[in-house]
Amino acid sequence: MEQNVHFITIASRDLDATRRFYEAGATWASLLDVPGEIIFYQVAAGTVLSFFDAAKFAEDAGLPAAPVVAGVTLAHNTASRGDVESTVAHLAAAGGTVSKPPQDGAFGGVFHAHVIDPNGLMWEIAHNPFWSVADDGTVLLTEPG
Amino acid sequence: MEQNVHFITIASRDLDATRRFYEAGATWASLLDVPGEIIFYQVAAGTVLSFFDAAKFAEDAGLPAAPVVAGVTLAHNTASRGDVESTVAHLAAAGGTVSKPPQDGAFGGVFHAHVIDPNGLMWEIAHNPFWSVADDGTVLLTEPG
Repeated sequence: MEQNVHFITIASRDLDATRRFYEAGATWASLLDVPGEIIFYQVAAGTVLSFFDAAKFAEDAGLPAAPVVAGVTLAHNTASRGDVESTVAHLAAAGGTVSKPPQDGAFGGVFHAHVIDPNGLMWEIAHNPFWSVADDGTVLLTEPG
Repeated sequence: MEQNVHFITIASRDLDATRRFYEAGATWASLLDVPGEIIFYQVAAGTVLSFFDAAKFAEDAGLPAAPVVAGVTLAHNTASRGDVESTVAHLAAAGGTVSKPPQDGAFGGVFHAHVIDPNGLMWEIAHNPFWSVADDGTVLLTEPG
């Protein structure tokens, strides 16, 4: 299997709240929106984050009941510590729940926060000086030079 | 918040089984591997999939117990229906659990399967003629031309 994730699909318990949070709140634009079923957002070159009605998610996956998202975190890195604080404030105003206010992380130099979206999905908003992306998209996890 | 996911972090109940599944099985290469803690794999330009020890995931997230991943699917698209079958066979041989054998999906033209990884993470392996990626990384969800 090639080393690529093309879709990240999250079981959504409220597509309308999801749309408000990501579009009115985070100012994202959808790639495709099928009301009552699924909303697609492109989140990297070649990669889409989709929110799929939880009952339909269960049906597709052969699960006995609509699942609640757990055990996964999506992270969004920012250019500065101040950007962590402003992004978290913005997402909280859009209906996100701040489960960890902006603070220093367990690993040296990381400054981060956790915000829960309307589906229960946890986002980490972080400034990480050990992380960078080269011009060709290669991720570098190294100490600042 | 810019429309980017930089990390997808999964709570892992067995990092050694995870390493075997993705490296010996899927022939992926890690970006960074901290035994007993976390393994990072780059899965798109600028995007990393990481498997984080579930107890440490819980501690970082302020959860009362180690979570089990639920309500999320990662999808890997292939160039043909035959590639779906060969990829699923390969992942099953590497320790994956096939929860949906390769079959036509609910949406026209999609041929897909579900395979569960050692952490309980569901992968969809799919051939989708309505999906393509342009040279600049833009995802297109359209009918075949």
